[in-house]
Amino acid sequence: MVKLVLVRHGESIANRDNVYTGWNDVALSAKGIEQAKSAGLKVEKIPDFVPTHIHTSVLSRAIITANIIADICDFLYLPITKTWRLNERHYGALRGINKDVSRKVFGQKQVLKWRRGFDSVPPLLAQPVQDRRYKGYDMRLMPQGESLHQTQKRLMPYYIDHIAPQLLAGNDQLVVAHGSSLRALIKKLEDINDQDIVKLEVPNAQPIVYTFDSNLQIINKEILYKD
Amino acid sequence: MVKLVLVRHGESIANRDNVYTGWNDVALSAKGIEQAKSAGLKVEKIPDFVPTHIHTSVLSRAIITANIIADICDFLYLPITKTWRLNERHYGALRGINKDVSRKVFGQKQVLKWRRGFDSVPPLLAQPVQDRRYKGYDMRLMPQGESLHQTQKRLMPYYIDHIAPQLLAGNDQLVVAHGSSLRALIKKLEDINDQDIVKLEVPNAQPIVYTFDSNLQIINKEILYKD
Repeated sequence: MVKLVLVRHGESIANRDNVYTGWNDVALSAKGIEQAKSAGLKVEKIPDFVPTHIHTSVLSRAIITANIIADICDFLYLPITKTWRLNERHYGALRGINKDVSRKVFGQKQVLKWRRGFDSVPPLLAQPVQDRRYKGYDMRLMPQGESLHQTQKRLMPYYIDHIAPQLLAGNDQLVVAHGSSLRALIKKLEDINDQDIVKLEVPNAQPIVYTFDSNLQIINKEILYKD
Repeated sequence: MVKLVLVRHGESIANRDNVYTGWNDVALSAKGIEQAKSAGLKVEKIPDFVPTHIHTSVLSRAIITANIIADICDFLYLPITKTWRLNERHYGALRGINKDVSRKVFGQKQVLKWRRGFDSVPPLLAQPVQDRRYKGYDMRLMPQGESLHQTQKRLMPYYIDHIAPQLLAGNDQLVVAHGSSLRALIKKLEDINDQDIVKLEVPNAQPIVYTFDSNLQIINKEILYKD
């Protein structure tokens, strides 16, 4: 038996202000920092959970959450990989826009589709993001807006190459990522269909604990809700 | 021109209490956290310094210092490697002992030799350290006490394989480590002899900035002292 623990970052300033974030790099709110600490205390209590690796995105809100959890659990020494493939879904031209404003501009129905449809692509950015965290990448090959499906397609190569092999080798793993990137991963892990995934919410900083057998079949799933 | 920045961690609880630490994992003191923040503000102001990689030890006081600096400088997204080869010198059986007490027990002269002689080995531990951060290593091949020279010998393979090649490729690097592991590295970088290294002190959280030419000859060294 091996464990995979998924944690969405604590509340960000953008979550608090109801703004689309995606690949924008925003800080945790004060509440988000407290949520991350609370998540750390929950992860610390998972029986026999000592991962060999922490996986997170290149976005600060996830990295800070991972560092806070690692500090509390005495996991600081663990190798940590920060990859754009675990980034939040790229919200394209919607990023930085208030969600209520977007409903007024584009209409409730269109916005719901963009937000929840598995294959709905938001309006793309006109230019690739210029950000030093993507230095060394050919930005023409990187997303400028993504559906949840596209998010899943760029996330799975990382899971296949760097997380699943560790789990198959019997090594527990910790993933700290984002609402939609975790939804995309969970959809695959649990084989959820395109309709049902719409209803799945991944709340901030509530650890999701999967226990797998040696073939990575799910034996148990537990969400460590608020105390 | 390329930059290598070395930072010793902020004051630890053991520094504060005047205790030999070595491979013991101790937290930063409140003062140490403030020093780390101050170091971050200094590193942030180094002109054109955007490293491609952060290197640190597997000891929490160095990792936390690195994370604080990274947060302030917007370097959180950078890959970070945590390696035992950058650990503090292993103080063997002295670890956990108060420095004043050690002088009373072993004599002033012996203690000075252990602390400052380049080749002086402290009393070894009777048993290898059992610590999950070294899981997967053959502990019979790992130190149970080290001279500064031995510290240098186990540190240099990491520098040669993972830091120098990056510098030669023109990529700035940030190293956050420990008083004696940094002394061992500086001795090599500056070709300091076995006598003079005795006098070198590396204070907590004062960034040392090396500027190298394309052959890694030192063009400039600057220590960013207290504001």
